[in-house]
Amino acid sequence: MQATPGEFEIIRDYFAGAPRGEGVVLGIGDDCALLQPPADGLLATSVDTLVAGRHFPADADPAAIAARALRVNLSDLAAMNARPLWFTLALTLPHSDAEWLRGFADGLLQTAQAYGVSLVGGDTTKGPLSITIQVTGGSTAPLRRDGASVGDAVYVSGPLGAAAAALPLVLGQKLAGDSERKEAQRAYYFPEPQLATAAAIAPLASSALDISDGLLADLGHICEQSRVSADIDLHALPVAAIARQLAGEGALELAACGGDDYQLCFTVPQERIPELEQLGLEAVRIGTVIEGAGLSDNGERVRAWLDGERWFPESAGYQHF
Amino acid sequence: MQATPGEFEIIRDYFAGAPRGEGVVLGIGDDCALLQPPADGLLATSVDTLVAGRHFPADADPAAIAARALRVNLSDLAAMNARPLWFTLALTLPHSDAEWLRGFADGLLQTAQAYGVSLVGGDTTKGPLSITIQVTGGSTAPLRRDGASVGDAVYVSGPLGAAAAALPLVLGQKLAGDSERKEAQRAYYFPEPQLATAAAIAPLASSALDISDGLLADLGHICEQSRVSADIDLHALPVAAIARQLAGEGALELAACGGDDYQLCFTVPQERIPELEQLGLEAVRIGTVIEGAGLSDNGERVRAWLDGERWFPESAGYQHF
Repeated sequence: MQATPGEFEIIRDYFAGAPRGEGVVLGIGDDCALLQPPADGLLATSVDTLVAGRHFPADADPAAIAARALRVNLSDLAAMNARPLWFTLALTLPHSDAEWLRGFADGLLQTAQAYGVSLVGGDTTKGPLSITIQVTGGSTAPLRRDGASVGDAVYVSGPLGAAAAALPLVLGQKLAGDSERKEAQRAYYFPEPQLATAAAIAPLASSALDISDGLLADLGHICEQSRVSADIDLHALPVAAIARQLAGEGALELAACGGDDYQLCFTVPQERIPELEQLGLEAVRIGTVIEGAGLSDNGERVRAWLDGERWFPESAGYQHF
Repeated sequence: MQATPGEFEIIRDYFAGAPRGEGVVLGIGDDCALLQPPADGLLATSVDTLVAGRHFPADADPAAIAARALRVNLSDLAAMNARPLWFTLALTLPHSDAEWLRGFADGLLQTAQAYGVSLVGGDTTKGPLSITIQVTGGSTAPLRRDGASVGDAVYVSGPLGAAAAALPLVLGQKLAGDSERKEAQRAYYFPEPQLATAAAIAPLASSALDISDGLLADLGHICEQSRVSADIDLHALPVAAIARQLAGEGALELAACGGDDYQLCFTVPQERIPELEQLGLEAVRIGTVIEGAGLSDNGERVRAWLDGERWFPESAGYQHF
């Protein structure tokens, strides 16, 4: 890699004090990082770009931006039941701003330490603000999207709708008190990668993913790849308390269609449900996998029901900032 | 990963026909790719971002942009003596443009096939044009920057100055005939990752890197990390024919300071020189590693000599587009 002198050094210097993580033979500073893969299992890797003005406001707290960027990527590892090992950062910045970079590096370091993942490389370029992070983890029992079967129960790992309800506050489009604003910031910038839940369900679940674009849309991806469909009972959805507080009657739709919560959606064969229920997870059963419709009929793969009637969202689609 | 529907599918569809590469258990389409690391050795990984208007003209041939983006990354693997395995693509585009994407995907696929490297994941976002590629390879005998010792000979793997001489033509700042323009395009957009040379020298070399920012600057990185200095004889530099043709008298300075050629610079202990010379490589000895100056004295780590006198570049620095 060719790190531009100056910018990347600030971030690297922040990480110099961090303990050298598992498998890092040679970190930042050569043409490549050298990494020792785990002895068992597979590597799981995922990359995500966040662009200012699209995925976060350009003037947002840089520590929060960094936290969200890394957490969103770690959520992809959780969705595969992979243990976080390493990440790289490609940072494009309009101009060198030491204060911004320190804030960003602080947020990144705190998040990396919390999840035991090591920064092993990066690139800094001049240009419009955007952040690309690639995470790599190790998995001995990967969870995939393509294993759901007819009759499996559909679960979500925890409350939904918080991030979507928080978005208008995060964007400054809606005023709120201090405590509500703080909770909204937390919901949007600090999603919790469901790593522990993924590890717990991995022996039982037939498929899984993380909910980034909204439950109905993302469950659709499981259905497409597993060639099945699903019925969802909206009354069963665990709606986040802050979503009810901020969105009132609209909270249910946010829970069904809003994105950015990064809970897991997963399926479990009927015969494994008793074991799952014994795990004491926050996970809630919300539906059932049914026969797949024609493969071209993607729009109908997930059917939401409310009081015995088909339910459709009022909004054509949610704003994914 | 969350691939934006539309853009990334075009690229993915182009790759659907490509043979599934080594170690790819699950490719594009789930939350993560699943990869089986090689049984022996370490992984080497590197990330680079190319921004339109900075690393390439926004209106350049998309196939050439893709080729350069991947080749530049593969060069980082060559610099570590790592065998290319996998790469990811994070592509930020101002608007969906099917023709541009097809050209880009074509260039990417041809390059990937030529070097036996598999696209395993990606992300497409809307925003100012930029390309981030991360490559991962496997190495049983990695080459590092920090192994040079006093007395080692300094080599470059092949001719220098071509890309820097080509740049004014690539940018349209200088007119030229068809054949010169074509050769300039080739020099700038299609650098050859020195994978075979790296594999050949790995048992003999004490350090290596690829020359992206210019020989003197990059050899400085070897010196800093090895805590040594180096003397270079400019008369020994292999100056690319096209650099002489396009830049005349200025070609030597382009060979010494111009970037983007992606040849290797490496050091070899005296006692291994006979073995190296027997390999029949294009590599040329250009200098010798000497005692390191004080670690803070980075500017003096590499001393260039011409006819027995210290030589300094006329330009303060070269334009790295």
